Amino acid sequence: MDERKVLTSYVLRIRESLIRAGVRQVVVSPGSRSTPLAYAFADSDKVMLHLQTDERSAAFCGLGMAKATGEPVAVLCTSGTAASNYMPAITEAKYARVPLIILTADRPHELREVGAPQAIDQPGMYGRMVKYSADFPVPEDRVESLEYIGRHVQRAVSVATDAPAGPVHLNVPFREPLLINFGAEDPGLSFRSVRRGTMIPDPEMVRWFTETASAAKRGLIIAGELPPDFDKDAFWKFVRSLGWPVLADPLSGLRSGKFAESEDLCIDQYDAVLKNKRFKQEMAPDTVIRFGPQPVSKPLTLFLNANRPDVYIVVDESPAFRDPHHLATDHLQCAPDMLLGIRAENPPSNYATLWTEANRIAVEETRRAVMEGTDEGAMAGVLFAAMPDGSDLFASSSMPIRDVDTYFLNTGRDIGIFANRGVNGIDGVVSTAFGVQAARKRPAYLLIGDLAMLHDMNGLISSRFGETDLTILVMNNDGGGIFSYLPQAGAGRYFEELFGTPTGLKFRSLAEMYGCQYDAVDSADGLRESLLEPKQTNVRIIEAFSDRQVNTDEHRKLWQAVGERLDAEWNR
Amino acid sequence: MDERKVLTSYVLRIRESLIRAGVRQVVVSPGSRSTPLAYAFADSDKVMLHLQTDERSAAFCGLGMAKATGEPVAVLCTSGTAASNYMPAITEAKYARVPLIILTADRPHELREVGAPQAIDQPGMYGRMVKYSADFPVPEDRVESLEYIGRHVQRAVSVATDAPAGPVHLNVPFREPLLINFGAEDPGLSFRSVRRGTMIPDPEMVRWFTETASAAKRGLIIAGELPPDFDKDAFWKFVRSLGWPVLADPLSGLRSGKFAESEDLCIDQYDAVLKNKRFKQEMAPDTVIRFGPQPVSKPLTLFLNANRPDVYIVVDESPAFRDPHHLATDHLQCAPDMLLGIRAENPPSNYATLWTEANRIAVEETRRAVMEGTDEGAMAGVLFAAMPDGSDLFASSSMPIRDVDTYFLNTGRDIGIFANRGVNGIDGVVSTAFGVQAARKRPAYLLIGDLAMLHDMNGLISSRFGETDLTILVMNNDGGGIFSYLPQAGAGRYFEELFGTPTGLKFRSLAEMYGCQYDAVDSADGLRESLLEPKQTNVRIIEAFSDRQVNTDEHRKLWQAVGERLDAEWNR
Repeated sequence: MDERKVLTSYVLRIRESLIRAGVRQVVVSPGSRSTPLAYAFADSDKVMLHLQTDERSAAFCGLGMAKATGEPVAVLCTSGTAASNYMPAITEAKYARVPLIILTADRPHELREVGAPQAIDQPGMYGRMVKYSADFPVPEDRVESLEYIGRHVQRAVSVATDAPAGPVHLNVPFREPLLINFGAEDPGLSFRSVRRGTMIPDPEMVRWFTETASAAKRGLIIAGELPPDFDKDAFWKFVRSLGWPVLADPLSGLRSGKFAESEDLCIDQYDAVLKNKRFKQEMAPDTVIRFGPQPVSKPLTLFLNANRPDVYIVVDESPAFRDPHHLATDHLQCAPDMLLGIRAENPPSNYATLWTEANRIAVEETRRAVMEGTDEGAMAGVLFAAMPDGSDLFASSSMPIRDVDTYFLNTGRDIGIFANRGVNGIDGVVSTAFGVQAARKRPAYLLIGDLAMLHDMNGLISSRFGETDLTILVMNNDGGGIFSYLPQAGAGRYFEELFGTPTGLKFRSLAEMYGCQYDAVDSADGLRESLLEPKQTNVRIIEAFSDRQVNTDEHRKLWQAVGERLDAEWNR
Repeated sequence: MDERKVLTSYVLRIRESLIRAGVRQVVVSPGSRSTPLAYAFADSDKVMLHLQTDERSAAFCGLGMAKATGEPVAVLCTSGTAASNYMPAITEAKYARVPLIILTADRPHELREVGAPQAIDQPGMYGRMVKYSADFPVPEDRVESLEYIGRHVQRAVSVATDAPAGPVHLNVPFREPLLINFGAEDPGLSFRSVRRGTMIPDPEMVRWFTETASAAKRGLIIAGELPPDFDKDAFWKFVRSLGWPVLADPLSGLRSGKFAESEDLCIDQYDAVLKNKRFKQEMAPDTVIRFGPQPVSKPLTLFLNANRPDVYIVVDESPAFRDPHHLATDHLQCAPDMLLGIRAENPPSNYATLWTEANRIAVEETRRAVMEGTDEGAMAGVLFAAMPDGSDLFASSSMPIRDVDTYFLNTGRDIGIFANRGVNGIDGVVSTAFGVQAARKRPAYLLIGDLAMLHDMNGLISSRFGETDLTILVMNNDGGGIFSYLPQAGAGRYFEELFGTPTGLKFRSLAEMYGCQYDAVDSADGLRESLLEPKQTNVRIIEAFSDRQVNTDEHRKLWQAVGERLDAEWNR
């Protein structure tokens, strides 16, 4: 067989195996060595190809798509530092449990470690950050080689999607020439499918769980980030039978949709409530069930740490359950959905009523703060109120996700909330938001600070190559706002220099560069008005200027107001 | 001892050991976990602290400094994906042999792999990309621990600077609280110094080399990238005794300074000359000595591949000599400088004369092309002609370095030329140029294409935190110009979509965002005029709009003109 035919049948084998394993989206960064695979993807109508020239941003974009759908998404780049730029998104994918399929083109073996250009030591280069890594053979016309490749691709995707989901790496070497035949035929894969079972609780687990849940006097459910397809209907039936309050992290998805409006037990203001000393002391739970990872709220963490519950159950399909504060006492390893069929039929409890009452108070105060406030928190609240039914919110990892936690109140609107909380980096945020939008195909909103926006300005390059619908609200407080909340802020010396990092940069020109509709506001009212303007470009940037000191002060004022009302309740 | 004192004495031990080992520059990215080390650096007048909020750019900035000085440079970041963003620069540092000292702050052991925020599996995370990696213990008040840390830091820097130089990684975990005492005393290091010997050629090596060099009839010296402190005086004495032509890659440093003007044997136009078929056939060398890595020129590679020399000596202090085309026959492992004392006293040869004559012709044609041309090449030539004595040029890795190769002619002016040719990535280019400028402290010029500029726009953030003097000439041909030279360009289908990647982006707004003086030109004359304007801001951006097709055509026209004159010479 001629070389071109051999190459064609090799890359088609990879492409078709990826498709069979469920990959529908590929983010490609231009490069020479990756040409055969790039052409193969472009030549198929079963995979959607997205372009991004910065590989760091490209991988975060793929991460966003995979996160929003729960499906494996592939990213492809050429050899050399291109592949090194994938590292940040791979790291996030590992800890956020996102099935990212990394395809790196490589030079053939004779060009490795001999000083050849764009050749680096790629096999295994992501180390323990990936779940699995394979270095493929160069294309050759041998049936065993083709069988190996096809099966290995499907196996790799299967490993990526198995609990805990995560990134996998396939390194694919090519010799020149790099051209393939277009419109080539199906390679005829002999491996048909991976059919995975479901990890269900066994009878003994059910018995123990029912007994434990029924015995609890002060039970709490904590819901961290949950998958987009989590069965909320089953979840609330389960919760009602327990009668326990649910502390719902914004990433749980429980704060929006029909249940969010109707379920009193859905507590969205625990972060504010748990800043109250008395409440924190009096409301110690005896039993906790946690779904998803530990929520973002620091007061919640302090509350649990101070009142270590007798029983703290983590439900996780993976053996590597997440427990940063060493609170867990029991790990239920099964598909979380599968636990929801259990019923406890507990009677209504005063403990739950105290939670819902405190929550009601905090919601009132938060509403007032949004109405009357001028800081970033109030502005975040204004944004959330303006978001339409059937839209998505992506929050950056430092202050924005905390403001979502504080100011995003339960709503009947269908609003998806996403963030990169695997490692909480401020990198790749814009790109991940692009990815979420590309996968969900509905209006998306990004809440982000100026430093994170600067870090991934290149995310905007995506908008040059494909459709999107994104509104970016940049909170510009000129530097690292979150550091103002740290003890280091008190040190004074070198603080502004090392942590405040004021760049003085504004984003009007950036918007101009990318042809984005732009507006600058400096108050909650200004933002309200701005959001009434119709959106005219695929990406819209609203820059909200704010002051770090005012932000810190107003946040504290809100928490104080909530605290005072709670104190009054206790003393009534 | 109280915790703060323990922490202070621990980080001072690290800082003072770095200083003792020769580290004078640290690039810090803001973050919380790295606070103790950041404060320690800020509190010393023996290290210069540079800030960059994007860790990818920060590491490239450090790389530029280390590359320009040959000295070890440290970079410091917080835990999590911050550390993952160092990967691209680490990769380049490995292959470009640059001593980069990576300091990553980490969470203590109890917060690793338990789902804690910003905690990733950092020990050994850079795998084989670093020469050495150590995971430090958490700070404790024990003399053996402090001794270990101090010595290990000095050992790590020593490993980084040993041939082949390269990156090393120290992972430093900290527990809260993260504050240190300022102005604390010297920790009193017991380890005094690393004193490294010099690898000199032994008598047998000298005998063999002299004999081989004297026996050669058609000898060639190839000079790839050489260190900034390479002894040119000794080199040219050595060359004169051999009487061989020196094919001088722009990164050799041999094309500028007093010798470049006076030495006929310094061949700067071999790339153009070796495109001529007859010249390539007739001028096969029998013996080659190569210093530094293989040069960038593709015609040179093809020439050597077609006429594989009987003797091809690579001089390299490292056992891992670079030989991508399997041309080497003998590897002389010794410090290149040490070989230069050898004398051959060869008589003048016709072979050398043919080279210098061909070079003279090509220089004439290139001068004419710059005078008359309108394309990127001519514009590059205009830039090089305008650069003052005592300045530096940084060239991006795809077309720019090739244009430097073609259009940068031998000059008596002192102009340093730098590029990232370890792996030839288009990432981190702006930042590396900033680093080179920061280390050399003289006017710097960056020649870069639009894609590479986009990739590292964040490099400009450096300009918000420190002094600089940089002129950026962006060749905007709207996409990946270099791909036009590849065979894939002929495939037509999907080409523009996958490789041309036209973003339509221009840099006027970016210049505005960063407050940079800006000018747009679209011809060599326009650029000439623009360069006459005095520089007014610390960073100046000149955007040169060009056309990919015109570039390809004019480059080919120049090479054809050279070829025709060479043919005429042969037939005379």
